[in-house]
Amino acid sequence: MLLEKLNWRYATKKMDPSKSVPAEKVERILEAARLAPTSSGLQPFEVIVVTNPETKARLRTVSWDQSQITDASHVLVFAAWDNYTEERIDGVLAQITAERGQNDGMDAYYARLKGMYLPRDAQTNFEHAARQAYIGFGMSIAQAAFEGVDATPMEGFEADKVDDILGLRDKGLRSVCILPLGYRAGDGDWLAGLKKVRRPKDLFVTEVA
Amino acid sequence: MLLEKLNWRYATKKMDPSKSVPAEKVERILEAARLAPTSSGLQPFEVIVVTNPETKARLRTVSWDQSQITDASHVLVFAAWDNYTEERIDGVLAQITAERGQNDGMDAYYARLKGMYLPRDAQTNFEHAARQAYIGFGMSIAQAAFEGVDATPMEGFEADKVDDILGLRDKGLRSVCILPLGYRAGDGDWLAGLKKVRRPKDLFVTEVA
Repeated sequence: MLLEKLNWRYATKKMDPSKSVPAEKVERILEAARLAPTSSGLQPFEVIVVTNPETKARLRTVSWDQSQITDASHVLVFAAWDNYTEERIDGVLAQITAERGQNDGMDAYYARLKGMYLPRDAQTNFEHAARQAYIGFGMSIAQAAFEGVDATPMEGFEADKVDDILGLRDKGLRSVCILPLGYRAGDGDWLAGLKKVRRPKDLFVTEVA
Repeated sequence: MLLEKLNWRYATKKMDPSKSVPAEKVERILEAARLAPTSSGLQPFEVIVVTNPETKARLRTVSWDQSQITDASHVLVFAAWDNYTEERIDGVLAQITAERGQNDGMDAYYARLKGMYLPRDAQTNFEHAARQAYIGFGMSIAQAAFEGVDATPMEGFEADKVDDILGLRDKGLRSVCILPLGYRAGDGDWLAGLKKVRRPKDLFVTEVA
């Protein structure tokens, strides 16, 4: 199931610009990111979905001119919180309390968390938030494969410029990774036919038994 | 499929120490991490599987005494490369070349990558590697759910001490997250019955159409 899908997917290098991913598939790909676990349930990231052709064209100019950015029908930009703040953490606690009708022990838990996170520098907190975004990024990559949708996990872009184009910094966000969604071009994708290469298991896993 | 599994799973707080996860399930949970995509295919992390009771007990003492560490039958420690090195990157290129019988364009690609990564400080490279480890971490969390195996994604541990216990720094690795695998205790898990809380979609996704 998942393993089969992970073997099917690959970082698509050339997408067919004439094909568009159906809205319900995009919804489920976003839902996988939303359901992803994150540290203390903070979900310290958001996803920006770009379908506007002009915005995609601008993003491409700051993404090493990678054609998937404009050929994909949907470009997902994963953006992490630039910092942890009291307001953000209190917002999470308020939602938990509201949805569960109680928050036994959670007040104390999140008070400790604030004691740990708020004194730290913004960069440390951003790096922590970025890691959480990568869990969601992975879940969207996996769900895209289940949908039969091609995707290209990307880090090759100028994050500051992407932030500018999308107005992210004003929202306290910083772009960390991008996932164009579309369908592979029939030919013209040099990677499509090549063997997937992964480090062999004995060099990836160590057992302490 | 994946969404259903993500809704099923939760960060298990109390595991049944009498139950052990079958080896073939653990294999597939590790395989999901191995198949996970990573930046430039570097796979800059490894997974250490701890089943030894004494080692688990030692890990628990540096993991805020969380009982899942000793109650889980298998504890997966995800450890990222402490830095990018010429040797490591050349190793990836050599494997690609060997498995595909060619490396058209890859020589130049990885030469550029070394030009970018090798001059950077170790901490920057480690943070980048850690993000990749989180993609694999997410895939293992997802595969555990497909297997009907409970898991607890954890960051609450003293990484330097975990590194010491497992001898990671000598191998150029640093622990970044831990995933105990087991089965939830019938009762005694305060979180098991509570509603999963996630930020509503309209506060998680922004569309630029």
